[in-house]
Amino acid sequence: MIVKQDIRKLHHFINGTFVPGTSGRFSNVYNPCTGEVIAHVPLATREEVRQAIETAKSALPQWTALSGGKRSEIVQRFRQLIKEHEEKLIETICEESGKTKEDARGEIQRGLESVDLAINAPHMVKGEYSVNVGGDINMFSRKEPLGVVAAISPFNFPVMVPLAQTSMAVAVGNAIILKPSEKVPQSALYLSKLWKEAGLPDGIWTVINGDQEAVREILENETVKAIHFVGSTPVAEYIYQTGTKYNKRVAALGGGKNFMIVMPDADLEKAANAFIGAAYGAASQRCMALSGVIPVGKETADQFVAILKEKIAKIKVGPYTDEEVDFGPVISKESKEIILGYIDRSLKEGAKLVTDGRHPEIAKNSNGFYLGPTLLDEVTQEMGIFKDEVFGPVRIVVRADSLQEAMNLINSHELGNGVTIFTNNGAAARKFQDEIEVGMVGVNVPIPIPVGYHNFAGWKRSNFGTGVMFGPEQANFFTKRKTISEKWMDMEETSQTTFSFPSK
Amino acid sequence: MIVKQDIRKLHHFINGTFVPGTSGRFSNVYNPCTGEVIAHVPLATREEVRQAIETAKSALPQWTALSGGKRSEIVQRFRQLIKEHEEKLIETICEESGKTKEDARGEIQRGLESVDLAINAPHMVKGEYSVNVGGDINMFSRKEPLGVVAAISPFNFPVMVPLAQTSMAVAVGNAIILKPSEKVPQSALYLSKLWKEAGLPDGIWTVINGDQEAVREILENETVKAIHFVGSTPVAEYIYQTGTKYNKRVAALGGGKNFMIVMPDADLEKAANAFIGAAYGAASQRCMALSGVIPVGKETADQFVAILKEKIAKIKVGPYTDEEVDFGPVISKESKEIILGYIDRSLKEGAKLVTDGRHPEIAKNSNGFYLGPTLLDEVTQEMGIFKDEVFGPVRIVVRADSLQEAMNLINSHELGNGVTIFTNNGAAARKFQDEIEVGMVGVNVPIPIPVGYHNFAGWKRSNFGTGVMFGPEQANFFTKRKTISEKWMDMEETSQTTFSFPSK
Amino acid sequence: MIVKQDIRKLHHFINGTFVPGTSGRFSNVYNPCTGEVIAHVPLATREEVRQAIETAKSALPQWTALSGGKRSEIVQRFRQLIKEHEEKLIETICEESGKTKEDARGEIQRGLESVDLAINAPHMVKGEYSVNVGGDINMFSRKEPLGVVAAISPFNFPVMVPLAQTSMAVAVGNAIILKPSEKVPQSALYLSKLWKEAGLPDGIWTVINGDQEAVREILENETVKAIHFVGSTPVAEYIYQTGTKYNKRVAALGGGKNFMIVMPDADLEKAANAFIGAAYGAASQRCMALSGVIPVGKETADQFVAILKEKIAKIKVGPYTDEEVDFGPVISKESKEIILGYIDRSLKEGAKLVTDGRHPEIAKNSNGFYLGPTLLDEVTQEMGIFKDEVFGPVRIVVRADSLQEAMNLINSHELGNGVTIFTNNGAAARKFQDEIEVGMVGVNVPIPIPVGYHNFAGWKRSNFGTGVMFGPEQANFFTKRKTISEKWMDMEETSQTTFSFPSK
Amino acid sequence: MIVKQDIRKLHHFINGTFVPGTSGRFSNVYNPCTGEVIAHVPLATREEVRQAIETAKSALPQWTALSGGKRSEIVQRFRQLIKEHEEKLIETICEESGKTKEDARGEIQRGLESVDLAINAPHMVKGEYSVNVGGDINMFSRKEPLGVVAAISPFNFPVMVPLAQTSMAVAVGNAIILKPSEKVPQSALYLSKLWKEAGLPDGIWTVINGDQEAVREILENETVKAIHFVGSTPVAEYIYQTGTKYNKRVAALGGGKNFMIVMPDADLEKAANAFIGAAYGAASQRCMALSGVIPVGKETADQFVAILKEKIAKIKVGPYTDEEVDFGPVISKESKEIILGYIDRSLKEGAKLVTDGRHPEIAKNSNGFYLGPTLLDEVTQEMGIFKDEVFGPVRIVVRADSLQEAMNLINSHELGNGVTIFTNNGAAARKFQDEIEVGMVGVNVPIPIPVGYHNFAGWKRSNFGTGVMFGPEQANFFTKRKTISEKWMDMEETSQTTFSFPSK
Repeated sequence: MIVKQDIRKLHHFINGTFVPGTSGRFSNVYNPCTGEVIAHVPLATREEVRQAIETAKSALPQWTALSGGKRSEIVQRFRQLIKEHEEKLIETICEESGKTKEDARGEIQRGLESVDLAINAPHMVKGEYSVNVGGDINMFSRKEPLGVVAAISPFNFPVMVPLAQTSMAVAVGNAIILKPSEKVPQSALYLSKLWKEAGLPDGIWTVINGDQEAVREILENETVKAIHFVGSTPVAEYIYQTGTKYNKRVAALGGGKNFMIVMPDADLEKAANAFIGAAYGAASQRCMALSGVIPVGKETADQFVAILKEKIAKIKVGPYTDEEVDFGPVISKESKEIILGYIDRSLKEGAKLVTDGRHPEIAKNSNGFYLGPTLLDEVTQEMGIFKDEVFGPVRIVVRADSLQEAMNLINSHELGNGVTIFTNNGAAARKFQDEIEVGMVGVNVPIPIPVGYHNFAGWKRSNFGTGVMFGPEQANFFTKRKTISEKWMDMEETSQTTFSFPSK
Repeated sequence: MIVKQDIRKLHHFINGTFVPGTSGRFSNVYNPCTGEVIAHVPLATREEVRQAIETAKSALPQWTALSGGKRSEIVQRFRQLIKEHEEKLIETICEESGKTKEDARGEIQRGLESVDLAINAPHMVKGEYSVNVGGDINMFSRKEPLGVVAAISPFNFPVMVPLAQTSMAVAVGNAIILKPSEKVPQSALYLSKLWKEAGLPDGIWTVINGDQEAVREILENETVKAIHFVGSTPVAEYIYQTGTKYNKRVAALGGGKNFMIVMPDADLEKAANAFIGAAYGAASQRCMALSGVIPVGKETADQFVAILKEKIAKIKVGPYTDEEVDFGPVISKESKEIILGYIDRSLKEGAKLVTDGRHPEIAKNSNGFYLGPTLLDEVTQEMGIFKDEVFGPVRIVVRADSLQEAMNLINSHELGNGVTIFTNNGAAARKFQDEIEVGMVGVNVPIPIPVGYHNFAGWKRSNFGTGVMFGPEQANFFTKRKTISEKWMDMEETSQTTFSFPSK
Repeated sequence: MIVKQDIRKLHHFINGTFVPGTSGRFSNVYNPCTGEVIAHVPLATREEVRQAIETAKSALPQWTALSGGKRSEIVQRFRQLIKEHEEKLIETICEESGKTKEDARGEIQRGLESVDLAINAPHMVKGEYSVNVGGDINMFSRKEPLGVVAAISPFNFPVMVPLAQTSMAVAVGNAIILKPSEKVPQSALYLSKLWKEAGLPDGIWTVINGDQEAVREILENETVKAIHFVGSTPVAEYIYQTGTKYNKRVAALGGGKNFMIVMPDADLEKAANAFIGAAYGAASQRCMALSGVIPVGKETADQFVAILKEKIAKIKVGPYTDEEVDFGPVISKESKEIILGYIDRSLKEGAKLVTDGRHPEIAKNSNGFYLGPTLLDEVTQEMGIFKDEVFGPVRIVVRADSLQEAMNLINSHELGNGVTIFTNNGAAARKFQDEIEVGMVGVNVPIPIPVGYHNFAGWKRSNFGTGVMFGPEQANFFTKRKTISEKWMDMEETSQTTFSFPSK
Repeated sequence: MIVKQDIRKLHHFINGTFVPGTSGRFSNVYNPCTGEVIAHVPLATREEVRQAIETAKSALPQWTALSGGKRSEIVQRFRQLIKEHEEKLIETICEESGKTKEDARGEIQRGLESVDLAINAPHMVKGEYSVNVGGDINMFSRKEPLGVVAAISPFNFPVMVPLAQTSMAVAVGNAIILKPSEKVPQSALYLSKLWKEAGLPDGIWTVINGDQEAVREILENETVKAIHFVGSTPVAEYIYQTGTKYNKRVAALGGGKNFMIVMPDADLEKAANAFIGAAYGAASQRCMALSGVIPVGKETADQFVAILKEKIAKIKVGPYTDEEVDFGPVISKESKEIILGYIDRSLKEGAKLVTDGRHPEIAKNSNGFYLGPTLLDEVTQEMGIFKDEVFGPVRIVVRADSLQEAMNLINSHELGNGVTIFTNNGAAARKFQDEIEVGMVGVNVPIPIPVGYHNFAGWKRSNFGTGVMFGPEQANFFTKRKTISEKWMDMEETSQTTFSFPSK
């Protein structure tokens, strides 16, 4: 690799300042559209992480001393600054992730929903108050911040996921240590500037760049009280098991294998449009992307595949600088190879190639990590491509003879993030909602991602622990409850001892 | 040990029936008041546990198929039956735990509070409903039962803790596997009869007796989705780390070292009465028992110790059959020895013996596991008896010069279950509430145990994970959320594809 | 009227005792199945009501002094007693209202749902607690009982409606004055005994029998803080306007004109079964009874009417002593005449008589107030029978050409209690839910009555004010909120004055 | 009155445009600091109001069609614009109300809290969702906007009260008709510009200026579904009784007579500082201003009055253009006279003049409506100045011998808005909280005004109906609940009729 002169040297963001890494270890940040290295991101040592955590801890008192309203005002200013810097943020996201501008804009918008919810943190963290629960005792509860908490983010949403993981955490009075993906560190660093400008005290928002070593320190450091992780299922499982081994609270959201069931009564044209966007958008690099479709009945399947084929042919792949493009490259060369491996293996296992995206036009003249949209038909439950989450634009058709069979395919899968059905029939939709073992369920909806004021969480191996992303439950995850029993003596009260267990 | 003829042979309760153990392994159940073995409890093999779990799983569909209201009616009948069988339950508790009747009655009453809350499970598990969150999508959530869940209970509350752990779990639609303490298995078995009579379907409530082997199966069995543990801190930590290693939800509530701070302005007579009952009641075998007192100022300390000494002299120790008795024996011979060890060590370390309960009068003529009330003054932070939870009637005085110093003593302790302050001063109470790092806080209250409709949970090493006992949070712990995005097409809708990330 | 010797003389229930009326004014209570007078109910003077209210007021302190848990226990015992006395209550309901035993049993069951919710009053009345809202002020709220409150009940649910109106009111700490319908006073009086036996302090539950004079006192008496009324729309409106004129809180639930829309895709057989039961059950004397059906399309209408005709022919009308009977008499001779008047007028206005229930077989040999099921087709929006709630077994068919037209018919009606649609189409159900201006909406459900843990309330002239029946909102209606801002000084605090409006 | 050339001609704001009044009737708007007329505000005819209401109604569909998130974004922009225009708004408030800049700034800040809460309207209006409440019926609720609603605002908070009354109303999907006080119409008109700029659709926010005639139309117009009034008690009562007579929802918040109890153990210096600011700030023209103090014990009273006298002497009265000024003029000449009348009458009735503010220095050279701070001692319960809310800087001392006596004085008053106690004693504070019959209670807090996320509401004649200002309850007041029972048929279901009342 030839290091070009203009490659940026990225920093950490600690104690309100951008500070260079001290480890001497760096990772390359690529522009996936060109395949070029655009920046070097420092990989923190455990000692650097430890010190950042200590700094965060010592910043806490002045943050928790503020009233909820004062903290909320800073969150509001932060929101406003994101809107003001939206175009620059989009550019940053696109450059390091390769996604289209429209997609980056959507990501920011959804990320803002979490900030919006955090604005109302003072309402969200109210405790409960009871008068005279017995013996003239009033009993009440308060939700207090945990202290220093951490978030570990994936590459696919450089802004939305960090905002969703951290906004409420900060608003309720914690200090956050964010370790963004080393593939897309610039977006998180950009947010740091905005928090600073919004008036957040130094030390409350920390971005530490790094790899396993930084993660290890986060997992083991006693000062870190909770970890919020979003990423692939194997790493989520590792984080859950390791974080809890160190007695922390852990939310660990993993991957998905999300299917669309198409019923014979569905409007196939609409269903196909929904599928194309939700399946191939962002080069399929979303934990809630549709991984495949399960048409019910041969006739439905044949027609639906024909429509998809036609629509896929019109999809345009290319760099985000081209506004006509539907989706961009995948995140890395390694990722591209893994995806190609899945296609090849599936074909050997008997899948039928409907459209072949392995060699897109754009790849002829670009070193970007491009793949075109691939569709495989007649995929079965036994194939690896059915079982694994594949983070790239190869999608599958699995055929079923009945709604029940389609649901069985999904319910037997070890992942359970998202799922959707297309039908006009109320009874089919109800059966689906009742019996599908998946956390986020759609009816005639392409991707059933909750809005910011509802909770986002998969089931089964798509989510370890009880944590969520988005939604009011975040306020509970990032606080601990103190329950107070308060009595005030009065003069007349007789004085006597009770040895028995108090029962009202 | 001479096995007497009338020693009962206890069973498991599986699939609605009492079934004998098959392992050939048994544990002795004692009457702590006499020191005699009263029953043999079978220790289950992993295979027995596994089968019980499978039975529970297969019983689920008929339980979850019932409406919330129908399930609630069964919970109501269960509650009514407990009231009807109250005297028999008290007898059972007393015989195997040694606690006084009044104490057992209090325990049942507090246990019923959890049943009361479970009656309203249908209200507690409501999801949220939003109209048109964007794109004509209505979004709503439902809380669904987890499936088979387990509870592991301690010996000190043979009825209250199992009720608190399981009532909501059952009411929201789970099947429960309860492993009671092998020291007090009869109370839980008694509850089994009542559930059966109340109309609970067979298989939904299982009592499996056992030791580490049974626990191991519960921890590792994939069908068990959540574990609720109450016990000592070391075991709680083990359960949390091991259960989460198997990707389960785990609530693990551990021990406490709970102090009463006595301020100079407090009514010492009232404070002393509160202390005596909350400290020595149930032979101090409560995770929320007061472990010690921290008087503020020398004068307060001297006076308070003098008052305590006088009051302790009047405490009567003996069997539950004697209604005049204040507290009974500790749970076992081993426990008694551990407690004596703590006293001896403390004296060597410099503690002053205020009252000596090592050789109570009753012990002269009884093989029961009796200890009288012991009070040690001038205990310091460095002594083992300050650091460890001691489950027996030796309590300590730690002297401090200021409220701040008293709070520092508590905040530096690794446990954080309960704490209380006696004062008439609002400012002192507020400072205490704000800055004390303990989960359950009292003001002029002997033991700040929440009522059934508030959440019970300690901080620090008194509680691992986010789980609670009692309170509305139980409904969340025992359910998982499904979020549904529902749209219905209409004719006029135009059909087009969106590749970008959906943002309202 | 010849007064028979065995006619009961009913009492009021005041201060825990049955007391005779002093006015000398009485009203007849009939057995509608025989037309005979079974009891004389005293009609209270204003002075009697006034004294009952004063008695209630003076009983309050001992009731509010109890902890929520203690009050809840009494509610639990009350619930249990209702179950134990269920058969006697059924007999009482049937005798004075004429409804079938099965119907009375259902009414009690639904009434118990309100008692169930009231059991959890301590949870329902929790206030909110916020730490440091600014200036070290903690802010919290508590919901306190209003004091003396009143309920005025209709004749059609002698047990369910009083339970729904009063259970939460009592549980949260109020004293209730219940004025039942003078047509069915015995059921409410029966409940009085059960409350007494359950341990409710004397004076907290009062039954005052009476007519407009008693109502007038309730409306004007300053001590009565809230009124919960269920009855016909004109009276509800009067109660709302008059009660609020005296500055009270008023919930006033009125009548309904509830339609079932039948879509062409519906299963007509199922829809017809649903209609028959929900329309004619209890001789149509329910505010949520189906008043008519709006089939969409001529074909649907013709078929549906044909099926209804056939099914109506099999309906059996008679006394509750005959277990085969589908519904009984209407409540009074006057009521019967009003209903006959509606039929005659409708026929003159052009409605077509599908089945004629004016002269049922049973009426030949009985003086009971019997009417058979009548169905009128081709009813239009202009006819009186479309506009008015008719409390008797004459139901109507209004034909529409489209879902939109059907909905317009409903939305233009001044009442908006309940409505339902039968269809298998998700889009039709959604459009219906979105656009129908009715408070309680069904989809493939005969009568969309909420369960006890959801709120019951119509829209438009079916409900005046913001009050509901059933559901958690009851707890808000019967309490007032106190918001407390609490600060405790500390020594270091500087002392200075702020003239400006405090803003955090 | 000589109309000066530069007197502004104010407009209404209807359908997104400033439109001149057509009635030919105008009212003078004064600068209270100079006594000069600064503007003429049109007084609308009933017809003008009627048309504005119709316009609002026709604007509704496009507003309710937006998702909650889209509406929330507009609210956010509105908030941001208020911040940007803060200085101009302050100027506007000061000019027409005479309050100081610092006070105006505080008012805006507190008003923003209501906007903040409205940002989370989508969360606030969530309904509840229950699975299978019986018979496979899912039951859920949604909160729908009422349609056209109205707010009538007082003069004393030209920005805060309108924001508090309307922000949530708008955010949840209603159209608002705001009638500001004709004394301070410019602030509300200014807000209109900001809503427009924020993107609110025309017709959703209407400002109609007027007097009783406009109010009459609002009260009687059928299209107006709810009225939110804040003002004096007599008018609040009129609005409540008249609005409900037209079957509307009415929140009517009236005046207050708010006392500070000073206990002998209180820090008198701090209490006095708190009193001075909260009593005289804004020339006492706040419904939550402290009206008087009740010192407990003669010694406390004597000392406290002496301290107050000294502090009052330092209060500076003058125009808002002078930054040193503590408070400004009262709102009008008429108001000034009424206040003077109260002083004179009180002196005749026996009150003692501690400080005399009837002829402040500034009044010598200004036509502004100035009054200096007056303090009257030895006021008794019988005097008019004890009974009535006086909206100007005359405050009273009422002496009591015990806390109980002090509380009796307050509890016997017909108003119950706010109250506060100064003490260091926890027991006194608890007794006060428990037994005081006032809606907003302070402990060591000058004015116990709730923050925006808690509910603001007095008791007794300070509040008619169940409505509040601020707080989550606003979302309930401005929405109506629709409860839906949804079932979907399936093939196997048997078809049969049930006549009895459905009970799960």
